[in-house]
Amino acid sequence: MPPDTRLDALPGIPPSDRATVRRLPKRAVYDQAQIAAILDEGLICHVGFVVDGQPYVIPTAYVRADNQIYIHGSAASRMLRSLAGGAETCVTVTLLDGLVLARSAFHHSMNFRSVVVLGKARRVSDPAEKLEALRLFTNHVVRDRWEEVREPNEQELKATSVLALPLTEATAKVRQGPPIDDEEDYAVPVWAGVVRMNMAIGPLVADDRVLPGMQPVGRDRFPCFRLGND
Amino acid sequence: MPPDTRLDALPGIPPSDRATVRRLPKRAVYDQAQIAAILDEGLICHVGFVVDGQPYVIPTAYVRADNQIYIHGSAASRMLRSLAGGAETCVTVTLLDGLVLARSAFHHSMNFRSVVVLGKARRVSDPAEKLEALRLFTNHVVRDRWEEVREPNEQELKATSVLALPLTEATAKVRQGPPIDDEEDYAVPVWAGVVRMNMAIGPLVADDRVLPGMQPVGRDRFPCFRLGND
Repeated sequence: MPPDTRLDALPGIPPSDRATVRRLPKRAVYDQAQIAAILDEGLICHVGFVVDGQPYVIPTAYVRADNQIYIHGSAASRMLRSLAGGAETCVTVTLLDGLVLARSAFHHSMNFRSVVVLGKARRVSDPAEKLEALRLFTNHVVRDRWEEVREPNEQELKATSVLALPLTEATAKVRQGPPIDDEEDYAVPVWAGVVRMNMAIGPLVADDRVLPGMQPVGRDRFPCFRLGND
Repeated sequence: MPPDTRLDALPGIPPSDRATVRRLPKRAVYDQAQIAAILDEGLICHVGFVVDGQPYVIPTAYVRADNQIYIHGSAASRMLRSLAGGAETCVTVTLLDGLVLARSAFHHSMNFRSVVVLGKARRVSDPAEKLEALRLFTNHVVRDRWEEVREPNEQELKATSVLALPLTEATAKVRQGPPIDDEEDYAVPVWAGVVRMNMAIGPLVADDRVLPGMQPVGRDRFPCFRLGND
């Protein structure tokens, strides 16, 4: 996606009524390729579920694979047990791209790309699919990491639940571009524009017991970062 | 907070039952000062609410003021109308601090700090409190910005709803520090440690109509960034 380009709704799968963006529909995106690109860049999703009428929103890792996303966690997790039991869920991924500084307080905004997925998750019980999902989790964070570390043993697999959520009710919302000020405000003598933001990789800090001669993971192996920005 | 220091539960306000961290209680933090510090560093929260049994999780800006957080948006927003009507909500803020690369796939993790706030929001109807909340929103993103831009007019104030959520049921969860591998895995010949991550400020992109001579906002005016990391 080119930077600082305002996106409007693109052709895509018609959304279900409840998955239709309500506020500022001009920022809605239903195009599957764009939804996939946003999901592939994020590392953390926020999972919403309801217990006794109370909503909970919990951050967790995820990975997209084809037309679904996987989340995982302890088999003892209340969230995963709740979702595996057929509860409705909402999984949201948000990438913050910039601060939009306008000439009026009212028109300040943020540039972002977000995806909201509604639906019911299924527990991944097939051992081969579960192992493949765990491989994808690991390699979503660090490319080819799975191939160089110890794979899960039986006990670890048993302690881990993996859930899959289809992307059939997925919607993206995107705001990019400069501030849009009221015409008369362009005379206000203040700087206005966009402060770009991105997740950056800081130092790699080896732990105390790394064996001699082990090279740090190359920075090109973090597919979630927009390289060149950090 | 010193980097790479594992935090355990600190003394603080005893949590309500439903606000008690369920998974990995050793990572729970109920200390009000730490909760405030996490909230003050974030820019985006994820708001959970329920409509017809379906949870929704929507990203939005927020600001903390004393023992509450404010969120705001269009007076027409379904989310804000739902919350102002007394619905239970959950507001979650997550800061991602690092990727934890272990020697086994199972012990990979992320370093993060998150806050989960449960409760019911109230609509801010007092004009003075509403204006002050909007000032805090603006200056949470860019220090002293409110003082240099045009303040909201009557029409803009009417179009904006502000809600306040008390921090009486707020819980933080924190994971920091190196990977914790199984003893026998320390012999696996692979790099292991933490890849630090942070939100960084990229270029400041002026819009096309900035008046001549306007200086860009100084980078020291973004209080949400951990300066020195970008």
